[in-house]
Amino acid sequence: MSLEPAGSRSLDPHLRRYAARAAGMTASEVRALFAVASRPEVVSLAGGMPNLTALPLDTLSAQVADLITKDGLVALQYGSAHGLPELRDQICEVMALEQIRAHPDDVVVTVGSQMGLDMVTRIFCDPGDVVIAEGPSYVGALGTFGAYQADVVHVAMDEDGLVPEALREALATAESAGRRVKFLYTIPNFHNPAGVTLAVSRRAEILEICRSHQVLVVEDNPYGLLGFDGQTYPALRSMDPDNVVYLGSFSKTFAAGLRVGWVLAPHAVREKLMLAAESATLCPPTLNQMIVSRYLATHDWKGQIKSFQSAYRDRRDALVSGLEQHMPAGCSWTVPKGGFFVWMTVPEGVDTKAMLPRAVTARVAYVSGTGFYADGFGSRQMRLSFCYPTPERISEGVRRLAAVLAAELDLANTFGPISGRRAGTGPQVPGPDIA
Amino acid sequence: MSLEPAGSRSLDPHLRRYAARAAGMTASEVRALFAVASRPEVVSLAGGMPNLTALPLDTLSAQVADLITKDGLVALQYGSAHGLPELRDQICEVMALEQIRAHPDDVVVTVGSQMGLDMVTRIFCDPGDVVIAEGPSYVGALGTFGAYQADVVHVAMDEDGLVPEALREALATAESAGRRVKFLYTIPNFHNPAGVTLAVSRRAEILEICRSHQVLVVEDNPYGLLGFDGQTYPALRSMDPDNVVYLGSFSKTFAAGLRVGWVLAPHAVREKLMLAAESATLCPPTLNQMIVSRYLATHDWKGQIKSFQSAYRDRRDALVSGLEQHMPAGCSWTVPKGGFFVWMTVPEGVDTKAMLPRAVTARVAYVSGTGFYADGFGSRQMRLSFCYPTPERISEGVRRLAAVLAAELDLANTFGPISGRRAGTGPQVPGPDIA
Repeated sequence: MSLEPAGSRSLDPHLRRYAARAAGMTASEVRALFAVASRPEVVSLAGGMPNLTALPLDTLSAQVADLITKDGLVALQYGSAHGLPELRDQICEVMALEQIRAHPDDVVVTVGSQMGLDMVTRIFCDPGDVVIAEGPSYVGALGTFGAYQADVVHVAMDEDGLVPEALREALATAESAGRRVKFLYTIPNFHNPAGVTLAVSRRAEILEICRSHQVLVVEDNPYGLLGFDGQTYPALRSMDPDNVVYLGSFSKTFAAGLRVGWVLAPHAVREKLMLAAESATLCPPTLNQMIVSRYLATHDWKGQIKSFQSAYRDRRDALVSGLEQHMPAGCSWTVPKGGFFVWMTVPEGVDTKAMLPRAVTARVAYVSGTGFYADGFGSRQMRLSFCYPTPERISEGVRRLAAVLAAELDLANTFGPISGRRAGTGPQVPGPDIA
Repeated sequence: MSLEPAGSRSLDPHLRRYAARAAGMTASEVRALFAVASRPEVVSLAGGMPNLTALPLDTLSAQVADLITKDGLVALQYGSAHGLPELRDQICEVMALEQIRAHPDDVVVTVGSQMGLDMVTRIFCDPGDVVIAEGPSYVGALGTFGAYQADVVHVAMDEDGLVPEALREALATAESAGRRVKFLYTIPNFHNPAGVTLAVSRRAEILEICRSHQVLVVEDNPYGLLGFDGQTYPALRSMDPDNVVYLGSFSKTFAAGLRVGWVLAPHAVREKLMLAAESATLCPPTLNQMIVSRYLATHDWKGQIKSFQSAYRDRRDALVSGLEQHMPAGCSWTVPKGGFFVWMTVPEGVDTKAMLPRAVTARVAYVSGTGFYADGFGSRQMRLSFCYPTPERISEGVRRLAAVLAAELDLANTFGPISGRRAGTGPQVPGPDIA
């Protein structure tokens, strides 16, 4: 007689009660591994946690204290689902840096932009609807689309981002199969996980393709202000306000732990989003909105972003020069001009998912590419994050990873591939530490 | 030619793109009215906003400042979707006051208990599934059930809460119609909006009925510690841990604006909830969890709750004695022993929804009963909140309301009913100010 471990699905007395959508909610197989990966001796190139060491904690501390003393009865009370008016004004100023002209009424404040993504999917996607997304795409988005039983169709990228011709083909194929395509989900700037940026010359074309197919564009832009040379790009929203829903976040430019993000949407959509948000959380935390608003009003937040840019540039340099120095022949990677991530492809014969336990044993962690695809692709890819560890640790991590990869290639050359690509593993809900 | 106002649904170019569930998301007709009702000259007996004036703002301010100075890099960073371990430990201590014995692993911290409700509905309800709820029920819950296209079947209450025989009948009827009933949603203590409490003698019976019909119980308990005599009742969860999902909140015992709530669920369900929560918001705000945890660890939070109890008791007394003194014959109301709300029934011929604009003109606001039913019932009922205004303002509000009602009855007696009951208005998503 074999006993399954407590909590396994077949012992779950509630199994037959779950909604159909809950069947798709399964824990990432690598979750247990990440518990190990978070040990201090492991260099984690896996996490997407922003580096907060440059934040002015003493100033913040004093500001928040003042805010609670003077406005505590507001800060600790329910607010509206729309979000604080003064913060929505300021959000419009932030978006103006990427050429967006917007009315504060059309901004809805959310509990991180993840909630924005959840709300957009909620109001647009019926089960079986199709969402077009870059391949690879943000793992947290794939999880959300899965939770609403939407099917993801991936479209190829190259070093200039989403390939317009591939988008045209994907839309034509879906339409001829009678599928309802609801929106294109895209991260145009410093893509997570691919590290590439959609060329400005492609932006109008992508928008025109979507418009001609009557497909909405959902533009997710958490990293847009983190260009390493201070460069920004015109947001898709700035070029087609009526057909783009824009997702923004303070998680990477200020503080992820406050969970303050926003959605900018065409007016009618904004109304639906607000109603959806009310039924989801009633309102975003008032205190957190006031903290962000105060920070934007009193702190040199643009200067702060410049210091983030410079910190991340140093880390990108450490990662990329380490890769150039140590990686075995046959590896290739993207060289991001901003953001947090490098996307690496390893030689035939290596399975990045199968290799991960060996990497963690060698005290280095990454995320296997399969998590970023809804279709089982990605077993020869991995995401390397350079946002969190110091440059020195990153260099050490790359050395360790290169050694693991070299050993893996030796084995593969001697005995053949260790593990073939396994199709259909699908997206798994990650811990936020790898989002 | 008539032009509809901007934003009206027929001018929405995205109309044919929405998910089926979005059709049910419509703004409350009384939303505009509540903008008026929030003017200072109006006595609002409508809002469910807790009274925060007793909170020790200076102490809180100092604690939060210290927390950001010392632990800012944690407080401002992503956390886990599970919630902070120390807070989950403390939540178990809070629940022990209502005889719940729980393991902190089985607690999931949420962005207010509204998010807990959303997550529970997400993992259990397919479109067309039935949720049993008290009639009337919490308007925010009806909105959430609507967002997941679940159908609500109301079950009658009396002064001892949910009527077991009515529950039995509702389950039998639903089953014989071949409907899938997923759970009973119940607010056993100091019900919103009805003001009644489920008699302890009925609790085991309600649980047994649900268990025998294989229906889960979702126990929503935001007011349980706000009994005016300090009395508490054994939670349903304490009597049937395997078949009850428990929703808790710090919104009424500490600070609503922090949006910190929790779900306590059987182990297998907890796992699904956590995955659902990850795809919804990645994680609850770390800073807010640390603020609550610090408050519970260092402040006399039980003493604080006693002061809340006493403030709300004074307000309940002001409301109820005003009603006794001023209301026309034929009105009846509940007399709550805790919580925030009185539920009043007015004489035949008066429609509380039609009367509301006249009440607001007379500078008093309430919520019409129709918002608390999914089936159009409630037009002779209203919810009167005593949580927010001072006792003096409450007394004044009741005088104004009684005058409006008397005038309305005069008219009805002279000319017949002003407006008949309109069926099928259904639940509408309220602003959080009336939740």
